[in-house]
Parts: sequence; C-alpha cells; structure tokens
Amino acid sequence: MNLFEKHQALLTDAVAALKSRTYFTPYPENPKAYSEDADAKAKAWISSIMNNNYTALPAAASGKWIGEEVSPFLQLGIGVNYPDYSIDELISNGVGAHASWSKQSLETRVGILIESLERIKQRFFDIAYATMHTTGQSYMMSFQASGPHANDRALEAIAMGYQELSRYTNETNWVKPMGKFDLTLKKNFKAMPKGLGLVIGCSTFPVWNTVPGLFACLVSGSACIVKPHAKAVLPIAIVVEELQKLFAEVGLDRSIVQLATDSQNEPKTKLLAEHAAVKQIDFTGNSSFGSYIESLPKTTFTEKAGVNSIILDSANDLKAVCSNIAFSASLYSGQMCTAPQNIFISADGVQTAEGVVSYADAVTALKDAFNGLIDHPKAGPGTLGAIQADLTFNRVKELASKGLTEVVNSKNIRNEEFPDARIASPIVVEINPNDPALYREECFGPIVFIIKTNSFEDSLNRAVELASEKGALTCGAYTTSLERQTKIEDAMNAIYVPVSFNFTGAAFINSHAAFSDFHLTGGNAAGNASFTNADFINKRVVWVGNRYM
Amino acid sequence: MNLFEKHQALLTDAVAALKSRTYFTPYPENPKAYSEDADAKAKAWISSIMNNNYTALPAAASGKWIGEEVSPFLQLGIGVNYPDYSIDELISNGVGAHASWSKQSLETRVGILIESLERIKQRFFDIAYATMHTTGQSYMMSFQASGPHANDRALEAIAMGYQELSRYTNETNWVKPMGKFDLTLKKNFKAMPKGLGLVIGCSTFPVWNTVPGLFACLVSGSACIVKPHAKAVLPIAIVVEELQKLFAEVGLDRSIVQLATDSQNEPKTKLLAEHAAVKQIDFTGNSSFGSYIESLPKTTFTEKAGVNSIILDSANDLKAVCSNIAFSASLYSGQMCTAPQNIFISADGVQTAEGVVSYADAVTALKDAFNGLIDHPKAGPGTLGAIQADLTFNRVKELASKGLTEVVNSKNIRNEEFPDARIASPIVVEINPNDPALYREECFGPIVFIIKTNSFEDSLNRAVELASEKGALTCGAYTTSLERQTKIEDAMNAIYVPVSFNFTGAAFINSHAAFSDFHLTGGNAAGNASFTNADFINKRVVWVGNRYM
Repeated sequence: MNLFEKHQALLTDAVAALKSRTYFTPYPENPKAYSEDADAKAKAWISSIMNNNYTALPAAASGKWIGEEVSPFLQLGIGVNYPDYSIDELISNGVGAHASWSKQSLETRVGILIESLERIKQRFFDIAYATMHTTGQSYMMSFQASGPHANDRALEAIAMGYQELSRYTNETNWVKPMGKFDLTLKKNFKAMPKGLGLVIGCSTFPVWNTVPGLFACLVSGSACIVKPHAKAVLPIAIVVEELQKLFAEVGLDRSIVQLATDSQNEPKTKLLAEHAAVKQIDFTGNSSFGSYIESLPKTTFTEKAGVNSIILDSANDLKAVCSNIAFSASLYSGQMCTAPQNIFISADGVQTAEGVVSYADAVTALKDAFNGLIDHPKAGPGTLGAIQADLTFNRVKELASKGLTEVVNSKNIRNEEFPDARIASPIVVEINPNDPALYREECFGPIVFIIKTNSFEDSLNRAVELASEKGALTCGAYTTSLERQTKIEDAMNAIYVPVSFNFTGAAFINSHAAFSDFHLTGGNAAGNASFTNADFINKRVVWVGNRYM
Repeated sequence: MNLFEKHQALLTDAVAALKSRTYFTPYPENPKAYSEDADAKAKAWISSIMNNNYTALPAAASGKWIGEEVSPFLQLGIGVNYPDYSIDELISNGVGAHASWSKQSLETRVGILIESLERIKQRFFDIAYATMHTTGQSYMMSFQASGPHANDRALEAIAMGYQELSRYTNETNWVKPMGKFDLTLKKNFKAMPKGLGLVIGCSTFPVWNTVPGLFACLVSGSACIVKPHAKAVLPIAIVVEELQKLFAEVGLDRSIVQLATDSQNEPKTKLLAEHAAVKQIDFTGNSSFGSYIESLPKTTFTEKAGVNSIILDSANDLKAVCSNIAFSASLYSGQMCTAPQNIFISADGVQTAEGVVSYADAVTALKDAFNGLIDHPKAGPGTLGAIQADLTFNRVKELASKGLTEVVNSKNIRNEEFPDARIASPIVVEINPNDPALYREECFGPIVFIIKTNSFEDSLNRAVELASEKGALTCGAYTTSLERQTKIEDAMNAIYVPVSFNFTGAAFINSHAAFSDFHLTGGNAAGNASFTNADFINKRVVWVGNRYM
C-alpha cells in the first residue's frame, strides 16, 4: 500500500471537515492520550541535545555550526548548534530539490506529507520541551500549540492543497459538434508550482505559525526553506528533521525542506527573501518587516501584527466574563497575536442580570479577575509561562514607569519549577479616551488597556476605527442585546475582522481551531494571508492547459 | 419558482463542466439556432438607435449625452449617445447599490444573473450589429464572440462564483470534547464582498472581455461600474440595459450595474480607478495602462498584451498547417490578444511526411496560404473584418514603409457589402534573427514575422525567452516528434504559457472555449488574471467567521 492509500481515509475526512467546519482532529491535544514513557523520553532527549550540535541535519559545506537560543525558563543559553548553511548552498540545494519534488504527482506528495505528520506526532513531547525552552510557553501550551494543534493546521493545508489541486480533471477529450463533423481536441491541465518557497518563522509560535505555509508550499509542489527566528529554532528543527528523514526514506532529495538557521548579528532573512530563486514567501512577525516582505515582487503570505479589542457592553454574569478576559490576556503573558489588548467599556457601565454595574465597579471586577488568576500559586505561573524576548519584558517595565493609572501591576510571579524564569504578569492600565495614542499601537506582551468610552456606539466606533487602521486578528464582544450584537458583527465583518461573542468558561478568543476558524482573514492590515482558505494554496500555483490535435 | 430554482439544473451542469472541462454551452453559436426574424429585427434596431440617444439607460443628472463611436465598416460616426454620468454620480449610485446587492443571498444573486443571460440571449443579434459597427469584427465573429461565447464566459464566472462562495457551510455547531464536558460554539462563515467594482473594457472585444469580470464581481456580491472603451460602447450598453431592467423587475437597485461612458478627450478611467470607493478593478487593454492598474492599492485583474509565437518544426501536412496559421493570423486582421505574431522556423527546414521542406519553401507555403485566404473573394473579407483603430491601421502602413523583406504585402481588400470599410490584410515580414528588436514587441493587428532560426532549439529558446519577458496568451507548435513536443510543453508551461499542438482544420489557437480553456494563466507578463479560475472569484471576497457562545 502506498502512502496516499494509507492515508486516504483521513484525507477524505479532512477535506470534508474543511467544508463542514465542525470540530476535527486526528491528533489528541491531551498528553495523556500518548504513550506513558513519552514524556520521560523527551526529557532525556532535550537534556542530550542541549549544548550539542543538531547532527540529525546534514552538516553545512563549511562545517560551521551556529545557535544562540536562550531558555526563558532557565535564562540560560540552551547551547544547541545548527548547520550554518550559506545562502548559495541553501538556494542551490533548494532549486535542485524543487526540480524533483515538483515532478511528483499530487497523490505522492499528499501521501508523503500526511505520513510526515505521523512521524512528527511521535516527536510531540520533544517538540514540547523544545518549545518551552525557546518560547517560554508553559508545558501544556508548548505541547498543544506546537504539537497536535500545529499538526492540525498542517493537515488542513494538505487537505486544502489536495482539494484545490485536484479541482480540474488532469486530461480530457473536448468534443465540439460542428454540424457536419465533430472537432476533437485532447487537453491536459496542470497546476504549475510557483517555485522555491521561504517560510520565515517567529519567536513565539515557531511551529504553529510555520507549518501552514510550509505544508501549503510542499503540497503545491514547491521545495521550501524554513528560516526560523534565531531564538526559536529547536522546535521546528525537529519538524524539518522528520520531513528530511522521510524524504530520504522514500528516495527523494532531503533538501526539499531545509533549515536556514542564522544569528541576530548575521541575519539571512533578507538575503533569502530577495534572492531571485525564491518565488513565494510565508512570513509571521512584526508589521514593518511584514510590509517589506509584501513589497517584494513575489507571491507573499503574511501574518503581521494587529490590535485586538474587547467590547464589554452587557453580560449575564460579569464575573465569568472578567475571568475569561483575564485568562485570555494572561495566557502566555499576552504573547499571542490573538491576545486582547484593549477593553472598551462605556461610562454608562455594564448591564448585567443583576442590574447595571458601574464603569468603576466593572474595572474592579476585571482587577479582581486578573489578580485572582495571577496570584493563584498553580494557575498563575502555569498560565503566564515566561517572557520570550527582552523587548517584550522591557516594554512592560517602560509602561510601568510612565505613572499611568494602573489597575493591575505587572508582577514577577514565582515559578516553583523554574525559579529563574523571566516572568511578567499583565499590567492593566486605564487610558484616558482623549489621549488614544497609547492604546492605538500594538503593545505585544502582557499589556492591557481599559478605555472608558462615552457610550456603546463610542466603544464600537473606536474599536472599528482602530481595527480598520491597524488590523486585528480577532475581536471579543460581550452583549446581551441582539441588536448590538448585529451592529458589532456587521461593522467588524465589513472591515474583515471576525468577532467572538460572549465567551466564558473554556472558550477563549485566543484560540483558532484548524478546520473551523480561519486564522486571520487576509483582508485587514494584520496580514494578507488566511490559514487556510483556498487562496493559501491557489496563489502558489498557476494552472496551465495544453491542447493537442 | 424563484430564479435560482429556475436555473438550478443549468447551474449544476455548469459547475460540473468547470471540473470536467469538456465542451459545454447552453448558448448555440450558430445564428440559425435562433428565431428566423431575429436578424431582421436587429437590423431595424441598429438603424433606429444610430444617431439617437440610448434612452434605455437612465439619463445623467446633468442631462448631458455623449458618444463618439465610428463604424470601421462605414467609416462614419454611428451617432449613438449615452448618458454622461459624473464621477460623483457613478460612485454615489454604485456605493448605494452595493449596500443592497451585497445583502442578497448567493442563491438570489446567482438566480438573477443566470436569468440575465437568458435576457441577453434575446439580444444576441442586436449585440452582433453593435459589435460589427464598433469593433470591425465580421458579422459571424461579432455574433459568436459577443453573443454566445461571451455568455458562456459569463456563465462560467457565475458557476465558479457559486462553487467558491458555497465552499464552506454558512453555519455550524462546533462541539469539542473536553473530557468531562463538551465545549459548544455556534459559528457562521461569510464571504464578505470587497466592494464596488470597475470593469474597464477594450475596443476590440467589448463584451467578451468585459463580462467575465462583470459577472464575477456581481456574483461575489459587489456592485459594478462598466467603463467601456469610448469607441466601443454600444455592445456592452445592451448588456448593462438588460441587467438593469432585470434588477428593476425584481425590485432591486438598477445601479448595481452602471455604464460609465466617456470620451477620449475627457477620459473617466483614472478618476474612477483611483477613487477610494472603488475596491476591485478588471482591465483589458495595453500593457502600460494595465501595469498602472496593477500598481493601485486595490484588488486587480488584468489582461494586458503578450507576444504569441508559433514554433514550426515538423508536420505531416505542411499545406494544412500553413492554411491554419494564415487563418489564425488573418482572423479579424490579427486584432486578437490570442493571434500569433511570430513564426519561428529553423534554417534546417520543416520535416514533413514527404521529406524535408526547405526553409525557403516553407516560407513560400506560408505565402501561398496567406494569399489564398486573403484574395478569396468571400473568405477574405469575411475573415479579415475591418480595422478598429487608426493606430492599428497606421502601424501596418508604417511597417510597410520600412523596406523590409515582405513575404506578403498588406492589401486593401474590397468588401462588397461595405465598400468604405477600413481594411488591411496581414503584412508578413521575414526578420533577420540577429536583429530581434522588431519581433520582440507586440505589434497589435495584422502583422506577422517569420524568423529564421539556427535550429529547433534556437526556435524554442527564442520563443521561451520572449514569452518569459513580454508574456504570451498562447503558443502554437507544430512537431511530429514526441520528444520535441515534450520539450516545448515543459519549457512553455514552466513560464506559465499554454501550448496548442498541431492545430489544423477547424482548430485555431486564437479560440479559448469557456469551461475548458483558461484565457490567460495569470502567471506571465500578459496579465495577472485567468478566465476563470478560482482566484478570479476568491480575490473578490474575504471570508470571515464569527463565533457565539
């Protein structure tokens, strides 16, 4: 049985899930669903790879190795070194590998790629520890986001690829009745791949944000260079290793996927992005670099920054709402592109089942919710994780030094397991609505602004205006009024921002589930791509039809 | 029965044809398939509209009327005047109409649009005469290209629109098992239209090149302004009239489609294209204006110019091949974006079933084929039609004045029905391959170059290099060698140019059939759009999903 046949049933289900958008995953998110010794083995693996060369990848021609990752939990360099391939080496290998990969049939590619996800699944626990010690995500988030949830998004890209690239017949006999005779032409139809791809990863979600572009590029028939953030290489190195091993196993070129590790002092990103041989680029990161990528004369897919708002109008249970918001803003210390930053509350207060709660009391309810979560000895550190970058840590300290009205102070919570972890819990600040400069910029990290507005309409208008200018990945809204719900949905959707209404309990606006929630719409300033719509595949190929008499 | 139900069977067949890419049309291309008096009625109609105001369209607020069309067959102004809407009027009406049209369901839109094609079908003969007396196309081509073939492409866009915009469920219950409980979210998914569209038409195919963008824009939920070429308004005015009548009939805003007639002295195109309210633009025309359109910060679909080549390597029946090439180059005097311009023949000659024909003899065979067609008293004028633009006519005269090696001279063939018609039959010129400047530019109109190359490989390389730089809509190739066929196909497809092999008899490289042949690939310099692939719809909408607890 070939790999396509092996995985055909899963593929069929995955393609169906794209349409039905119901809950779908073949990769359980609960670590307990995996083998009992997986965690212990992964602990041994991460210990062994630290302070070592990552020899599972082919050595660079120069023989040089580089690495500069620092664990946010240990605040120590992890000492893993990766092959320091030159630009020429990466491009030349990539172009060569592209030539052979692009000749494989769609079915061959799909079979190999789904099989690779099975292999990657065997490494979920390794990837979890690698993610922890590069991003600062908690163990559970590291496991889920870089493991099963990332695999879900990779499978989603493969399924969309299969659906789109099999949308036309490969060959047909075209027979046109001409009266006295028929005109018959043979025709074929081919999805010609755009060519060598480059996927530029970010430091906070090095797997989840990389695999959609990587697998979309591969399933569409193009070879791909993965350029991780210099501070978050290890998790995606495992993915590249498993892909390379499988390519070698089935007799294909390992270089169909390559890892382009660089350093912050000698970055390779622009050299690769601007190289004529690179035809398509996937990017996750800050808006200014993202706009530079979009300006290149290539096919680009960007996830840049946005500013996400919550409109708090009315709620049955304000306490449950505040708990939900506090968790969304505290999860991984707000280092998520989907974390909420601005909470708009009208001076009229919040209508609840027990009457109107004044603005001041609503702010107190939020304060209590944040403190209750953050100060909880287990939930606090487990939710917050650690701060990935100096820049983020300093941004919080700088804001705290400004003498603003702090509802909640940023605290250095103690993590018992990692006493040296770099931690900053959210700082929650009340903003004068007449001085909007602060809340109108994306302040990546554990920073939350509460904006007192004149009315519901003022809240909505400010949130819409901001999302329209800066982009947004999500919007949270709390209202018990169907009329206001419709107003929010219509206004946000018109600027291509999705809305999540009245989330409490286990539903968080941060989470975008593969096969159901589009991650970005591609229609606002937060980025031009969407995980995973049809464009995410179709822009990577050109359909060409030939005719024969 | 509503209009969607009325046309659902046709829609189902049309969507199936998109995939199977077999021959499909509900609109017969033979005029005899229509009612007997249709032609006579259309002759009466064209006589009545000439030298009149086109009052079937609403008058402009200013009350002004404009028109400057000239019949290439009569070389007289046809005197039809159209409402001279101001930019403000067009935009304001368009934005208002967009608001209501975008709220209609996909099924409502599809039903109305397919019904409109039925109404347009009743006007095929009017459209035919309108096309003749604006473009210079022969009667038969005017009927087929602007009538049934244009309707085919419009239906194709509607079918692709229906398929793409119904690709996700509208609503779902997403249920995630969380161990002790299920997390349930209601979700909806909406294709939000990009907004008011502008379709910029060309002077040679005012209907065929306009309706794909027009109907793609409409089916995707956006209102649309049609800006025809000032010299080719009448044919598309009929289409706009029929759409407007139908919109009014079903209680919708007539301004969902508007006709923006202008004059060459006071053009409206840039004013409309650059207007902030215009969000998507479809363009057919010259490359420099097309590149300007592409540079606007909007969603754009362009068909620009390319240079199409024929590679003549070997053939069983050289005479049949030369007849086919002569017809392709002479049809509508080469005023087609799909007409061949350059014929590459190796100095080694052409291998045929009867042995090698020398290069010189192959040129003679081409000469005989051109003259045989052009000098034929009925076929000649019927194939050539008339020259639409001064620019095209002068380009031929200018080339003839250069003292080049003319294989066939451009002649002013007499058209018995229209003795004043502006006619120029193809000029066929031998080009020194060491002086490639001439053949490397698109010379729109009845201009053909024969280039003597060193070898088959030289022919292929020159054709590929040219198409790679200038773009191409098509490539014709004649070879009896399977190896060379594969070489040509691989090389041309790699630069996203389709190839038609060994066309003789009734198959012409000029013809691109809806539901089977993509018109442009969108992947080379000839334009960024493709009639009609999934992108042609998907770029016009943004998918947004909302979630509710």
